[in-house]
Amino acid sequence: MAQGPRAASPQSEVDVLIIGAGPAGLMMANWMSRCGIRTRIVDKRGTKIFNGQADGLQCRTLEIFDSFDFAHRAWIEANHMIEICLWNPDPQTGVIHRSDRIPDTIPNISRFQQVVLHQGRIERFFLDSIAEHSKRTLRDVPGWEEGIKVEHGVMPVSFEFDESLAEDNDAYPITVKLRHLSEQEATPKQAATSVNGSGLQDGLFRSNLSPDDTQELLERSKVLREKEGREETVKAKYMLGADGAHSWVRNQLGFKLQGESTDYIWGVLDIIPITDFPDIRMRCAIHSESSGSVMVIPRENKLVRLYIQLTTMENAGGGQRADRSKINPDTILASAQRIMKPYKIDYRYCDWWTAYQIGQRVGDSFSLKERVFLAGDAVHTHSPKAGQGMNVSMQDAFNLGWKVASVVKGTSNRSILKTYQSERRRIAQDLIDFDHRFSRLFSGRPAKDVLDEEGISMDEFKNAFVKGNLFASGVAVDYGASVIVAKSGDSTEQGDGTEVLGEERLRVISTQDRAVEIKVGMRMPSFKVLNQADARPWHFQELLKSNGTWRVVVFAGDIVADPGQRARLDRLGDQLGAPTSFLKRFTPPGARYDSVIEVLTVHASKRPDVTIFDFPEVFRPWDARDGWDYWKIHADDVSYHEGFGDAYTHYGVDRARGCAVILRPDQYVSWVGDMDDYDSMDKFFSGFMVEQGKKQGQQQQQDALKTRTSEEKEGTSKASSLKDVADGTVIQATDGAVAGMAAA
Amino acid sequence: MAQGPRAASPQSEVDVLIIGAGPAGLMMANWMSRCGIRTRIVDKRGTKIFNGQADGLQCRTLEIFDSFDFAHRAWIEANHMIEICLWNPDPQTGVIHRSDRIPDTIPNISRFQQVVLHQGRIERFFLDSIAEHSKRTLRDVPGWEEGIKVEHGVMPVSFEFDESLAEDNDAYPITVKLRHLSEQEATPKQAATSVNGSGLQDGLFRSNLSPDDTQELLERSKVLREKEGREETVKAKYMLGADGAHSWVRNQLGFKLQGESTDYIWGVLDIIPITDFPDIRMRCAIHSESSGSVMVIPRENKLVRLYIQLTTMENAGGGQRADRSKINPDTILASAQRIMKPYKIDYRYCDWWTAYQIGQRVGDSFSLKERVFLAGDAVHTHSPKAGQGMNVSMQDAFNLGWKVASVVKGTSNRSILKTYQSERRRIAQDLIDFDHRFSRLFSGRPAKDVLDEEGISMDEFKNAFVKGNLFASGVAVDYGASVIVAKSGDSTEQGDGTEVLGEERLRVISTQDRAVEIKVGMRMPSFKVLNQADARPWHFQELLKSNGTWRVVVFAGDIVADPGQRARLDRLGDQLGAPTSFLKRFTPPGARYDSVIEVLTVHASKRPDVTIFDFPEVFRPWDARDGWDYWKIHADDVSYHEGFGDAYTHYGVDRARGCAVILRPDQYVSWVGDMDDYDSMDKFFSGFMVEQGKKQGQQQQQDALKTRTSEEKEGTSKASSLKDVADGTVIQATDGAVAGMAAA
Repeated sequence: MAQGPRAASPQSEVDVLIIGAGPAGLMMANWMSRCGIRTRIVDKRGTKIFNGQADGLQCRTLEIFDSFDFAHRAWIEANHMIEICLWNPDPQTGVIHRSDRIPDTIPNISRFQQVVLHQGRIERFFLDSIAEHSKRTLRDVPGWEEGIKVEHGVMPVSFEFDESLAEDNDAYPITVKLRHLSEQEATPKQAATSVNGSGLQDGLFRSNLSPDDTQELLERSKVLREKEGREETVKAKYMLGADGAHSWVRNQLGFKLQGESTDYIWGVLDIIPITDFPDIRMRCAIHSESSGSVMVIPRENKLVRLYIQLTTMENAGGGQRADRSKINPDTILASAQRIMKPYKIDYRYCDWWTAYQIGQRVGDSFSLKERVFLAGDAVHTHSPKAGQGMNVSMQDAFNLGWKVASVVKGTSNRSILKTYQSERRRIAQDLIDFDHRFSRLFSGRPAKDVLDEEGISMDEFKNAFVKGNLFASGVAVDYGASVIVAKSGDSTEQGDGTEVLGEERLRVISTQDRAVEIKVGMRMPSFKVLNQADARPWHFQELLKSNGTWRVVVFAGDIVADPGQRARLDRLGDQLGAPTSFLKRFTPPGARYDSVIEVLTVHASKRPDVTIFDFPEVFRPWDARDGWDYWKIHADDVSYHEGFGDAYTHYGVDRARGCAVILRPDQYVSWVGDMDDYDSMDKFFSGFMVEQGKKQGQQQQQDALKTRTSEEKEGTSKASSLKDVADGTVIQATDGAVAGMAAA
Repeated sequence: MAQGPRAASPQSEVDVLIIGAGPAGLMMANWMSRCGIRTRIVDKRGTKIFNGQADGLQCRTLEIFDSFDFAHRAWIEANHMIEICLWNPDPQTGVIHRSDRIPDTIPNISRFQQVVLHQGRIERFFLDSIAEHSKRTLRDVPGWEEGIKVEHGVMPVSFEFDESLAEDNDAYPITVKLRHLSEQEATPKQAATSVNGSGLQDGLFRSNLSPDDTQELLERSKVLREKEGREETVKAKYMLGADGAHSWVRNQLGFKLQGESTDYIWGVLDIIPITDFPDIRMRCAIHSESSGSVMVIPRENKLVRLYIQLTTMENAGGGQRADRSKINPDTILASAQRIMKPYKIDYRYCDWWTAYQIGQRVGDSFSLKERVFLAGDAVHTHSPKAGQGMNVSMQDAFNLGWKVASVVKGTSNRSILKTYQSERRRIAQDLIDFDHRFSRLFSGRPAKDVLDEEGISMDEFKNAFVKGNLFASGVAVDYGASVIVAKSGDSTEQGDGTEVLGEERLRVISTQDRAVEIKVGMRMPSFKVLNQADARPWHFQELLKSNGTWRVVVFAGDIVADPGQRARLDRLGDQLGAPTSFLKRFTPPGARYDSVIEVLTVHASKRPDVTIFDFPEVFRPWDARDGWDYWKIHADDVSYHEGFGDAYTHYGVDRARGCAVILRPDQYVSWVGDMDDYDSMDKFFSGFMVEQGKKQGQQQQQDALKTRTSEEKEGTSKASSLKDVADGTVIQATDGAVAGMAAA
């Protein structure tokens, strides 16, 4: 067996090694913590939790956080951005005025709206989540009882890769030597820090409300002292380089970032503003007539971030360089004051400031033989103003994590791993294109009139902003055809050029019109449905927790009105419940019925007209200790307190005929088809899933699955005798009139 | 100065001493933690956190939790009860069938619905909240830097009261000797435990998911060992006995519980049910034809609680006693099986079980000279089935806490303290009446037909259930006229008989029809309004955090459509902003403008038609460091993502003329009147508030207020120089193209 991370052994083995504990690395570790994968995550930074800059959290990022149960922490602490105000020069006077108001998040695209919260808090949520879940999922794995801990002050110093082992799933082709730094080595120098593309300072750290970090700091310092100077060798099955724009891993692989820098220089001030500008708590894009642009981002804790253009387009375009020694908070503020006049803006408290130059680059490759992967700033850099960086980085790892976990566990074969580059490199390319257009429009001088061809049309800017908002929400992501996305067309064109289709004979194409708004390749939208057994309304996405499970969602239609529909459902129930069903074939013997593929039902009958017993058993499985599963069947009906989700209508599903949908573990839609098209579902899963009991290493994979199962049944899986009753008892009166007595 | 709780001194002084750390005691300590009051809270129970039984959390309790910022924790962990199903004998066959479905919470009475969560978790939320806030509010008070800590294994052994000091607000008339128990002494015996009227067992403790309690257990044990056997004397200004049905404090005061016990005996099983009963995840009231009744309460973590009648009404009514030695889980289950047949019910996992006898009693007095108070089970006991016990207990202390705090701080005089008994003893009496009626109906045999006069009419039962639901929600509470509730009528009739009006010349009567649905004496209802400065929707109650502050809510009407309305608002602004204004007179010099009375505005103009600068300064006060206060003015307008709250309509306020409302620190409505009726507002506050600068002990009270102010400005009050900029800086490229450099 491999050794745990706290073993003194100079050589050890892990399933997954993550280099870098920023948002991308933490997201990867978070997935591993849910799936019970033996994982180490190291970061060369030392004892300090460096609070990164404020970052917008996209709708999609909050949906993802919610799938890991911590979106509410971000939602509560963050500043909610509701409205964007566009300020432009008045055509007559040249004085800035508010020309438009638009919603910051397009209404109804998500159950969340974009918010702003600094990176330090987001890292905190990940750390708590990783600790909590990995302790449970790994508690029975020798050496890993304490779960996954982020190791700070640990730096990779050498990398070897045995290519001959690349396709052997049980092998450890990766060898990395790690060095444990001293506290001094691990503390970044003030003058040259870079995390996620931006400078970090004590100023930011000092201001943050992070009462729960103190203990962490002390512990990290202790660990550093204990291990200082030690070197060790780690062998890994898989590895992720999430080590930022200057990625050591990327350099080891010899991969390159492709693209260019521009000469636009921007200053950033985080201040508590003292101003008479009326929209200072709105997100604002302010174009002055000739002094440049300011973007206003209201933040938590009374702060406001100002992005302030320091060079005009003319200067930058001509290759002229600004005198950087003259950039400081006072000069940045002076620029803001020029741009925002006649309004006054000043501050007494500045939390942090920096300046940066825009550049847009994408990595030429995202993986080495689908064994070593790169994510986040290591493979894409761009302007921070659109608030995309941290989001796209986390979403890289969110895309990758479950794929690696399911291959390590042996439930999926390695073919799915190529989709990471296909899907995410394409996203990075789209992001860079978006950022390029957006930056140009934002950095440009407003056109004086329609004849002013060098100026930027403010109408064009507004249109770009509105369109950009959809992109920036993260919900527009549309993954191309692949072994795990059953859509038609050329997979290389739809992705980054990588070939990601499986065997042609197993290719399945969706019948998209069965659910017009559940778009294959996009994330499952969310509307409220009611639990059949207890009438509680749930946003459908709330049922799609990130635990590594695939879902078959059966929109059963109205089984009361139409006996034919009920017969179709019964037939599907027979097929799904049969011993040869894909539910059974791909689930290890002894593992819980929903540990690999979960079946969820949404019916269109009136909730009071049916009970769960109107549905075949496979839709509400039985457990000898827990009885029936009351959490699988839902009704599209009116709730008492939260209105009517009207999910069938919003999903574009016919209430009479229904449909079936296959969802990936990351909530993306794999397949849409007829409710009773069992054969297509079976064919789809057969394209990449591994039949259990037919392959090597079966025992290990079963163990891994059992680990996850025990998490799912958390806290209630202790009984083994026929009846497990609490020891001892007492008979008690509410007012003491009956004395306590021991039971027989 | 008084000594802090961790001083070794055998004699010390505190502002408030709380005996008992159940829900009532913790709620009191929680208030004190927000207001910066030197408080000790002791409990004779030792190191174990005893998880009490599952308890329903009323809507109102969740509103209160939200005012302390932890409702979301309960909301996430709890089981939500949505629907009540009534099961009765079929008139023809006698077999039970579902006769009705009703919503568990009446729609639209609150933004929360009733949920169920066991008491151990609720105590956890309080402990976290008390620790977090008291560390901040007391950090500058010598000896109290660590804040308020619940002291376990500490028992009061003697009580003295110097009546001559009762009306001297600065005196310490209470002397209590405390003994620190050994761990053994502090561990309740298994066979005779009583908390909140119910038996507790390891069975319950074992099953709870409380990962954050381990550290707490270790610390408590350590403290116990350090202090074992020590005795000390504590002198207190105020004291609360929240020590349960067998209250030691109540016995010291010589107060009595009045009322009676019945002979109905009920069993309770907490099980994971194995059943074909289709409504097992609903709250159900099941009346069998002749085998008694069952109430089903679905709980968190797959559990279901069954309340099962063990004696029929006939047996009990005849004075016949059940053979208690025959009560055990098997006999209780057998009863349930008889009642629920033809459905089957069984279990393999039982979490906890008990049996109890119903009794209803109320304390004859709730306070000794408004210096020592009683709350919770110490002054009322009743049946647990209606889920009221813990709620009413916490609400007792929620009513009392801010009153005691404001008197200790010197902002209010002692006249307000009498309202505690007047308001809460009346509630307890109402509760007992409710419980008596409800228990009778639930324990009775269903009537066979209209001629069956001994049986209970199921229609009557349903009506009682529906009416009871409003009572049980907690939002129907309506406090009577008093010095802090400006309504007409006889205050003794409206309360428990205590005289609680102030000076007649200062009595103010509301003009209720200015806001028909903001009912004087009831809690402020909540609808969504938009922050004027950033367009964010807030439920109005979210603006009413429990920090000890009174609020004047100005419904300003439409100031754009009607210049006359704007003129009225400007005039009110002048009066409120004047040096002689009640805002100024009752706020200590140097304290923050909103530390005693906060002014909130809700206007009815379209949000985009105005800015905060259209309102006089007093509605958006200025701070030299933080600039304008952007969080005071709100619009009743349509939001982008959360609909239209239509608050004016729901509150019954005229959009043209507006109104003004005074809210107590506990969200109850004190006064409703014309928007510009400054004189009534001034007169109202003059009835009980203390003019600052005119009284003894002023410095201490100012210190206390400053303490609270510093909490409110948490985390942003560090700057003192003209401009406070983070040290050092770095200029940073997003892709490393510009090298880092130090700023000038």
